[in-house]
Amino acid sequence: MTEDILSPALAEAASDIEKALERLLPPVIGPEARLLEAMRYATLSGGKRLRPFLTLEAAGIFDVKRSCALRAAAALECVHCYSLVHDDLPSMDDDDLRRGKPTVHKAFDEATAVLAGDALLTYAFDLLAAPDTHDDPRVRLELVAILAQASGPHGMVGGQVLDLAAEVPGADFDLGQVTRMQKMKTGALIQAAAEMGAVLGRASPEARTALRAYAHDLGLAFQITDDLLDVEGRVENTGKAVAKDAARGKATFVSILGVERARAQAERLAEQAVNHVAMFGSRADRLTALARFVVDRKS
Amino acid sequence: MTEDILSPALAEAASDIEKALERLLPPVIGPEARLLEAMRYATLSGGKRLRPFLTLEAAGIFDVKRSCALRAAAALECVHCYSLVHDDLPSMDDDDLRRGKPTVHKAFDEATAVLAGDALLTYAFDLLAAPDTHDDPRVRLELVAILAQASGPHGMVGGQVLDLAAEVPGADFDLGQVTRMQKMKTGALIQAAAEMGAVLGRASPEARTALRAYAHDLGLAFQITDDLLDVEGRVENTGKAVAKDAARGKATFVSILGVERARAQAERLAEQAVNHVAMFGSRADRLTALARFVVDRKS
Repeated sequence: MTEDILSPALAEAASDIEKALERLLPPVIGPEARLLEAMRYATLSGGKRLRPFLTLEAAGIFDVKRSCALRAAAALECVHCYSLVHDDLPSMDDDDLRRGKPTVHKAFDEATAVLAGDALLTYAFDLLAAPDTHDDPRVRLELVAILAQASGPHGMVGGQVLDLAAEVPGADFDLGQVTRMQKMKTGALIQAAAEMGAVLGRASPEARTALRAYAHDLGLAFQITDDLLDVEGRVENTGKAVAKDAARGKATFVSILGVERARAQAERLAEQAVNHVAMFGSRADRLTALARFVVDRKS
Repeated sequence: MTEDILSPALAEAASDIEKALERLLPPVIGPEARLLEAMRYATLSGGKRLRPFLTLEAAGIFDVKRSCALRAAAALECVHCYSLVHDDLPSMDDDDLRRGKPTVHKAFDEATAVLAGDALLTYAFDLLAAPDTHDDPRVRLELVAILAQASGPHGMVGGQVLDLAAEVPGADFDLGQVTRMQKMKTGALIQAAAEMGAVLGRASPEARTALRAYAHDLGLAFQITDDLLDVEGRVENTGKAVAKDAARGKATFVSILGVERARAQAERLAEQAVNHVAMFGSRADRLTALARFVVDRKS
């Protein structure tokens, strides 16, 4: 029943965001074509598009024009994709595959991967600042501020540093440290995704807080489920090498809580997320379905 | 005579920007302290502070409050410094020293250098978007847009890709290609520096264009002089290994034009720059002195 309303909406959002990125990213021409091609390679390779979906759904609650929401969502996805490109670098996670395809530094080279990541991050702010994103410059500025904070040293990038620290043998993160790390590394941008939709819709402070809280819980539930999949999953389903964290002896929600308690915690968070958006009634049906899907997914 | 008005102003700006960065960068606390320390290491290590000086001087023409101009200048310097951190990486220029000190990936590690660069870039937009930068959100948004465009795929990052392409044996760039590469790699941010001062001061379109044109010519004059110093300089003066470009067989203004014509061209550009700001009278005295200094400098 959940999938009845969610699957088509997720598929439509993924298709729309793919088209939006295709249209909004700079065309591959001129002497810097290699960079522009790498930017596209990094972003147009599919993925769940969870974050853009959140922006589109949050904006949809307030009847924001879809073309505006898509620009903001595309900017946010550029930031997410840049972070994957840099995370995959040999000096970081050293991954050769991403969604079953060679990572950017494998398909191009390491220098191009660093620069394509830099370019995507920069371009995201360029996209948000442009008039097409919203008539009101104050709204655009607020989007810039939200995205910068969510992805900066106290957000995603800070979380990545903590994640690297967690891998040092003997780091032995406890539940509080793992939670903090995940809230920064993945949670901050997921929250920003929902909040940007609210800002585009000039939501009331209460509505904005509710969407932030929803995304906060959704993000943690998503991450705990990722850790569960990392333990239980198979290469076929996730498209990347699994049980990698366990092999490294790195603390995760599952290594600390165990499978059963981790699963229960993810489900509790998903229900909490659902409650946060109850105030929007049927307008939040797909967000509700998403929260349940996130903990039930198999990949 | 030139140095009489320029040296103290440059020193004061360098000191002010150092203090502003010290104050504006996140304090080094919490589990992500290593990242925050690397951000400071990358930015608080001195340097000419040419770009912030341009912002301060351009803003000064229009009596912009110095604390606002310093915030914008600090944001811009964060972007400049992030680009140096990434340029120095082993996969790029592979430099061990910067301004006579170990580069960030040497003083910390490669992953931290990538992430500290990412964090500085992101933080720059955070700084610009915050209310302290300017009362008017439209002005802040315009600063964001200028900085994003100057440092993105068609600006600084694009220029870096062209610079890497120029190093491929047999690339054999001609004057047009070298000029385009330098305009993107260093010129775009130098232009943005002056333009951001003009925007803060709500300069007329004519005044803004004049300052852009000044910075355009100054940037090229600066780069040609850099190439001359690369050939003529000594390690003691520039604090980095010299004649590196020549050793790599890479095309530069000097390799294409020869020393004499390159020097004449730099001087012509500096005079052109001076003419662009003549409309500001004595308010541009220091910008005038700077243009002359840039081509006369020994390091």
